[in-house]
Order: sequence, then structure tokens, then C-alpha cells
Amino acid sequence: MNVASRASQLLSSQSIGDLLNSVEAFLFDCDGVIWKGDTLIDGVPQTLDMLRSKGKKLVFVTNNSTKSRRQYANKFQSLGISVTEDEIFSSSFAAAMFLKVNNFPKEKKVYVIGGEGILEELELVGYTGLGGPEDGKKTAQWKTNCLFEHDKTVGAVVVGLDPYINYYKLQYGTLCVRENPGCLFIATNRDAVGHMTDLQEWPGAGCMVAAMCGSTEKEPIVVGKPSTFLMDFLQQKFQISCPKMCMVGDRLDTDILFGQNAGCKTLLVLSGVTSQSTLQDPSNDIKPDYYTNKVSDILELLGA
Amino acid sequence: MNVASRASQLLSSQSIGDLLNSVEAFLFDCDGVIWKGDTLIDGVPQTLDMLRSKGKKLVFVTNNSTKSRRQYANKFQSLGISVTEDEIFSSSFAAAMFLKVNNFPKEKKVYVIGGEGILEELELVGYTGLGGPEDGKKTAQWKTNCLFEHDKTVGAVVVGLDPYINYYKLQYGTLCVRENPGCLFIATNRDAVGHMTDLQEWPGAGCMVAAMCGSTEKEPIVVGKPSTFLMDFLQQKFQISCPKMCMVGDRLDTDILFGQNAGCKTLLVLSGVTSQSTLQDPSNDIKPDYYTNKVSDILELLGA
Repeated sequence: MNVASRASQLLSSQSIGDLLNSVEAFLFDCDGVIWKGDTLIDGVPQTLDMLRSKGKKLVFVTNNSTKSRRQYANKFQSLGISVTEDEIFSSSFAAAMFLKVNNFPKEKKVYVIGGEGILEELELVGYTGLGGPEDGKKTAQWKTNCLFEHDKTVGAVVVGLDPYINYYKLQYGTLCVRENPGCLFIATNRDAVGHMTDLQEWPGAGCMVAAMCGSTEKEPIVVGKPSTFLMDFLQQKFQISCPKMCMVGDRLDTDILFGQNAGCKTLLVLSGVTSQSTLQDPSNDIKPDYYTNKVSDILELLGA
Repeated sequence: MNVASRASQLLSSQSIGDLLNSVEAFLFDCDGVIWKGDTLIDGVPQTLDMLRSKGKKLVFVTNNSTKSRRQYANKFQSLGISVTEDEIFSSSFAAAMFLKVNNFPKEKKVYVIGGEGILEELELVGYTGLGGPEDGKKTAQWKTNCLFEHDKTVGAVVVGLDPYINYYKLQYGTLCVRENPGCLFIATNRDAVGHMTDLQEWPGAGCMVAAMCGSTEKEPIVVGKPSTFLMDFLQQKFQISCPKMCMVGDRLDTDILFGQNAGCKTLLVLSGVTSQSTLQDPSNDIKPDYYTNKVSDILELLGA
């Protein structure tokens, strides 16, 4: 609450020095921070190289669940940035990890409304996923006496961004949550919209998750940002306490809130969905410690 | 509030006499009351005939927006019940009427997520509808630099039950609501589930409406039950005050709440989604004046 009431500071050559001295790891959101769609944001590789050369740990935390960590590592590679799978924390990975740490039984199945990335992460920890892209062309039969059969061994439904959302998947997921005793309802994230292209905001996972809330009359367990579920993994892995981490992101209600919820330092970049006027609007009470135009300002300010 | 705290009375040969003496019009929900899917519920035609013979006005108020009033009249006909179009108040009709009474400009367009019934009702009052079934097979292009074009003259998005819901429609509706200044977001209803077949509950309009809430971060104007928007029409048409009407339905949170919100008498039938144990559960505070198993109990109790 204290954090929220403080005004955010424009990043300066003075404050960047303080930040680098006090922080051991930088957590980056990807879309709107590292890239926009498939286009790298100017100066990102040089900035990441500089931070690594100063011994900082780099972690990439993304709410986009359509890809697995392996697929994300490939995307970084294709854009000329060298990042390993274990530096990537995607909400697809978070969903699989949530089931694992909660000892979800291996003999139960997981129904997926979302992309291949979720299915791949589930498989890596030994779970059987159903649905996903495969159900994108299926239709429900709207006729009298039609019984829609669903697998009674489904013990969790995971919902993420799904470009192929349809009635069949919503019906399947709804029946599992409403009729299979104890069935979990897990959301990778609840982003209302995202930059699926460079030019526009399109409906995000929050759209599909809300649809399932509407039909199940239940609220999901959210594993992506701003939920701090992933933070335990980060802390264990890097043995760094939260105040020594800085979350860098373009969204107030996911990235910055995630950082604040966990007790990290926070840096908002204006290269994605949030404008300076939104940040400074009196109705906004999510205030990052610092803000700047883009990631490469870190490099420029240090050189100045 | 007073109404809610009173216990509901099982309909008896005593109370049915009192009800008939005090009420001039019966408002019936259809699904779960008159029929289930495409099957008529036993004894309905005889009961409706008896009520008409006693001079009672009959009105059919349904939240199902997939059909127009004309299509509903045909459905009644095919089941052997004679009902005229102007005795039918569907949420598809309500959506068109809402625009009309609010002087929605004829030169603006209406984007529809839902069935043919909404488009037909819009056309009858002179509005241009877009979307609906026609957009069921369209796909959005997920590629860099893709601009999803939407009609800037759309001034309202109407969302109802849509068996062919897809990302294209959600994206189209979302862009209209988020980007067209003053664009209305209208929901035919928010039923979580409905009896699309005799055997199961399937996601209802509440699912598609919630999806749009998730991506637009806005709440809709609801025109179907339990909103009392239609009640003004009923009162004007029949010149009967609300306390002289009785709402008969199978759902507590739509039908009975609708009746109570308007100040009507209310009768719950247990032939649809609500069981006696749900009605009498301590957590339920929507209590109809009367309840009975099915509509034809009215006939039987009068004969007894």
C-alpha cells in the first residue's frame, strides 16, 4: 500500500546506478518489453549483454501460454538473443508446475483450452493432456437427446489464450469443472488483451478464462502474473531474495503488480501497452518504482 | 427483500384458487416449463387452454435469443400449441426493442455474436445487423503487422447464446466496444447454462457474454430476465399492473428474480433446472411465492 502511494521516478543516470547496485537479478516480461509481435525492440540485445557482463541474472517471465519454454528459447534464438530454457518462466510452464507441486495424480488427465505450449509443458512433467489445438475443429451436436461425453478422469482444466476457441472446448471444459468431483479450474493468466500483432490489441487469455467463469460459475486459480506462484521457483533456483530482484514490464496490472506483490523493485517500460498518461492518471494506483521509455535506456543512461 | 425472506408455499387446491382469482396474466418461461429441448412437457396444452378459457392473458418470456418471435411461434405450432407472435417476448426481441426505445440511430450498425433470431428482430425494426452465423467460419490472421479491420459505424454489439462462438467474433466485438466511441455492449441474458438437450446442461449466453466482459473490461446492459426491461412493454400492451401478473419459471436467478424485481407473483416449477433441495437450501434467498412440480399441476389441483 505504501508502494502504491509513492510517485514513480523517471529512470535517470543517477537512479540507474542505484538500481544496478541494489539488484542481482532482472526479471523481464517479453511482449512489449523485449519484442512486439515478431519484431525485436531496438537496443535490447546490447542491454541484455551489458547486464550479463555485470554479473546480473536474467529471467524472462511471460504470461503468453501459447508456447512452451523450448519454443520460447527458439524464438529468442531466431531474434538473435541467446537465452536458455531455464531462464524462461512462461505461464504454460507455471500451469504444469502448479499441478506438480500440488501432487496432482499422474493417472488423472488435464483438459486444455489453449495452445500447444501448455500440452508440451504438461507432458514434460508426465501428465496426460487432452484438448488443445486438436479440438479446434470439433463441433458439439445441438440436437434433442444428445449426450456430450466427457472424460470422467479429467481432474484439471487449464485455460490460456486460445485463437481456436469454440463451443466444443467450452462445453468440454465446463462439463469437467461442473461434473467431475474436485476438478481444478486453472487459468494461465487473465490478461484482457495482448499485442498479437504490432498494430492492435486483441483479446487475451482473460477472454477465454472469463467465458469459463461464465458457464461454470467458478473462479479459477491463476498461475501467471500477477499471481506470485512462480516466485517460489525463482527464489529457490537463484537463491536471491525478492528485494534484490527487479521486475521490468509494460503492464501495470500484471507485471508491475506481480513485482510489487512479491516485494521486488519494479521498472515500467513505455514500449508496450501502458502510456505515460495512463501511468500518471489519478485513477491508477499501481505505481512502479521507476519508469522509462524502453529497455535500452538502461544502457544509454549508464553511458551518459 | 421481504419477499425473499418468506418461505415458498407448495401450490395446493386452496392456493391455486387464490392465485387464479388475483391474477389476470400468466407469464411463462419456455424451456423447462413448456418444453425440454424439442419435447413438450406433459399436460401443458390442456393447462394453457384452461387458463385461456378463464380469460387469463398468456405471455411467453424466454431468455433464449437464438430464435426470433416468428421462429418461436413456429416452434409452438409444431408442438401443437397455438400461440401468436405478439404473445412471445424473447430476449432477441428485447435487444431490438432496447435499441428502438433508446433511439439508436438507423444509420449505425449492430454487430451480433449470437443466432439468426437476433438479426431477424433487428431487421424488423429497421436496423442493419452484421456478424451472427455468417461469421461462424471466419478466422483472424495471427501474423505480424496484421490489421483486423472492423466497421467504425458499429454503434452496438449484441451478445447472446452462440453455438458457433469463435475468436474472430470475439475480436470483432471487442474492437467495436473498445475502439468505436460510445459503442453499446448489450447482453440478451447471462444464463450460465441451459438445457440445449434433454440430458445435460450446456454453456448458455452467460459464457459468451463473460468472454466479452473479459476482453473489453466492461459490463453489459442486460435486456433479458432478470432485467425488467421487457416489463414496460408487457404493461403497456396488456394494461395489467404487475401485482396482477404471475411469472411461472424453472430458474430462481432469472425467472423468479425477474418476477420479483417487477413486483409480480411468482410460481417455480420443478420441471427444469431447479430441484426442491436447491429451492430449500439455506444458501438460496430467492423464494417464489409458490412452487409445484409442473405446469399441469394447476389443472390437476383445480380439478381436485
